[in-house]
Amino acid sequence: MKQPVFNFSPGPAVLPHAVLEQAKAELLDWHGSGMSVMEMSHRGREFMSIAAQAEADLRTLMQIPQNYKVLFLQGGAHSQFAMIPMNLARGKSQADYLDTGDWSLKAIEEGRRYLDLNVVASSAASHYTTIPPLATWQLNPAAAYLHYTSNETIRGVEFDWIPELGDLPLVVDMSSDILSRPIEVSRFGLIYAGAQKNIGPAGLTIVIVREDLLGQVMEGTPSMFNYQLYAETESMYNTPPTYAWYLAGLVFQWLLQQGGLEAMAQINQRKASKLYAAIDQSDFYHNPVDPDCRSWMNLPFTLANPKLEQRFLDEAAQVGLVTLKGHRLVGGMRASLYNAMPEEGVDALIAFMRDFEAKHG
Amino acid sequence: MKQPVFNFSPGPAVLPHAVLEQAKAELLDWHGSGMSVMEMSHRGREFMSIAAQAEADLRTLMQIPQNYKVLFLQGGAHSQFAMIPMNLARGKSQADYLDTGDWSLKAIEEGRRYLDLNVVASSAASHYTTIPPLATWQLNPAAAYLHYTSNETIRGVEFDWIPELGDLPLVVDMSSDILSRPIEVSRFGLIYAGAQKNIGPAGLTIVIVREDLLGQVMEGTPSMFNYQLYAETESMYNTPPTYAWYLAGLVFQWLLQQGGLEAMAQINQRKASKLYAAIDQSDFYHNPVDPDCRSWMNLPFTLANPKLEQRFLDEAAQVGLVTLKGHRLVGGMRASLYNAMPEEGVDALIAFMRDFEAKHG
Repeated sequence: MKQPVFNFSPGPAVLPHAVLEQAKAELLDWHGSGMSVMEMSHRGREFMSIAAQAEADLRTLMQIPQNYKVLFLQGGAHSQFAMIPMNLARGKSQADYLDTGDWSLKAIEEGRRYLDLNVVASSAASHYTTIPPLATWQLNPAAAYLHYTSNETIRGVEFDWIPELGDLPLVVDMSSDILSRPIEVSRFGLIYAGAQKNIGPAGLTIVIVREDLLGQVMEGTPSMFNYQLYAETESMYNTPPTYAWYLAGLVFQWLLQQGGLEAMAQINQRKASKLYAAIDQSDFYHNPVDPDCRSWMNLPFTLANPKLEQRFLDEAAQVGLVTLKGHRLVGGMRASLYNAMPEEGVDALIAFMRDFEAKHG
Repeated sequence: MKQPVFNFSPGPAVLPHAVLEQAKAELLDWHGSGMSVMEMSHRGREFMSIAAQAEADLRTLMQIPQNYKVLFLQGGAHSQFAMIPMNLARGKSQADYLDTGDWSLKAIEEGRRYLDLNVVASSAASHYTTIPPLATWQLNPAAAYLHYTSNETIRGVEFDWIPELGDLPLVVDMSSDILSRPIEVSRFGLIYAGAQKNIGPAGLTIVIVREDLLGQVMEGTPSMFNYQLYAETESMYNTPPTYAWYLAGLVFQWLLQQGGLEAMAQINQRKASKLYAAIDQSDFYHNPVDPDCRSWMNLPFTLANPKLEQRFLDEAAQVGLVTLKGHRLVGGMRASLYNAMPEEGVDALIAFMRDFEAKHG
């Protein structure tokens, strides 16, 4: 390695260094088995123990109640966009969706192929820099569930509250902020997250679902899209993505060692606050998001002079600050500060931003 | 590691030692990038180069014609069981399926949910120890395609020929024998394979499909089950399983270094022939499969005295020969001899079998 690199990728994203070190040490021989975890039968004693420990640790971290199943799936959030209507409509033909940005819209677009969707509110008019207040949501009494995105990875808009909607099952895409702070699982019908941001490598998707919502799948649903089949088989209906599951388990152990989600929340808040402060204190940098719903995980920002953007990215890369380019839909820069991004990385970015402003401001 | 282990798992399965060594060496820092491959954005320059090289190497290995797309997917063969009818029916309502064993049956069971299936022939009457001769297949002229399984992993029945059916698109589940010998890709409409046997770690599925078959997906197909969306995006419709893709690429490079598929075919034939000879030369061991269709990849065998099976497995494990237990549907033993199983492993197994027979025979 030429120099330490801080990787601000929105996903796949930085993993805890200690986790990668352990994965490396165990790569050829897991616990004296003589096998790599990648080589193990998913139905063998060794991998079954890895899988069970990962689930147990996730249950501890998130305090998942016993009436919730934890499923280890493939296919990312994009698969969930179809699986959710197919599994959770439960005989109804309508569902409520909140629109707070690009990922909300993807869920809506795919969900519309299966159900009559009602968009309860949208922040499109603010260019997705706000969250519509709950009091303005136009709920449909016939909806099977309400779907929302707790953190919009592209524009950096995050909920720090959970909508209270009585008995209507809440379904949340938590892909980019799961495990970043404690949440009350019992408030949700279903939580899902692609692994490649705060959990582990790409190719694994976690679903946490209240048991009573399962078992009424829509006709024509592929078996691989039927939650019930995974719930009945400890997520081994077919061969699961074993190595990604193992890596996720190492991340869960690392999170427990850090003090769990309360500790992570403190660190994450501190990291994000520093960077927002640096942005707000300068006329050279700008973040457009309403301070009440700014993400701790994904911090987009622009330069007052957009012509300097490529130079910013190039000079940042030269000092080891990489993958800072904003999403193509919004341009500018984006710093993703997931759990595994060390505070030193944020400090280094802020120092670089000050230097860059001093040179070019 | 206590001692070298030879892992005969049917999948996830042994990987080439050189590949695992390279993965270990690069785990924390791929080519001076300062990042693990697991941490890289799938849209970044580094991973795009890994992905493109893997596809190019697979095309070289299998001599894939330019009018075929190579897709890197998730979800395993089980997802293909639904994706194939959903994508390849192309307005027709019927398809032909050959039944040569447990994996054929799984494909049939799921396919039936979408199309009217005609089972052209079945070897059920022989307890799946044969392949029905092509002349006996009852083809349906209205079929959209014909599906078969080139290697039945559980009972060890393998095609060493490709059915000639004129213009009817041939669809083949090659999960457990892809890359084990050269095959003529242009004879097929679609070839698919879960990675976890002869390609790489679980969580990746390769589909090789003739372009003209794409673009007529069945209504209601989830976007993630639509081949066309992957074909249009170089398999980056959503975040792919990046680390598994990288590992597969390392395996492809290793295969090229071994001399490609002609060289592998010679080695695989030699490994399998040795073990079949050892089984056939003894009354103590037995393999029931018709010698004309015995698998080079998965060699099931039983003991004349089934009471000795557990002892066989225990004593084998003591000398580092592991994961030899047969599938629960058939019992007995099964040795899977994928590309990555070194010939020394087969020799060690044969030596152990002779010793065991001498002791207990």
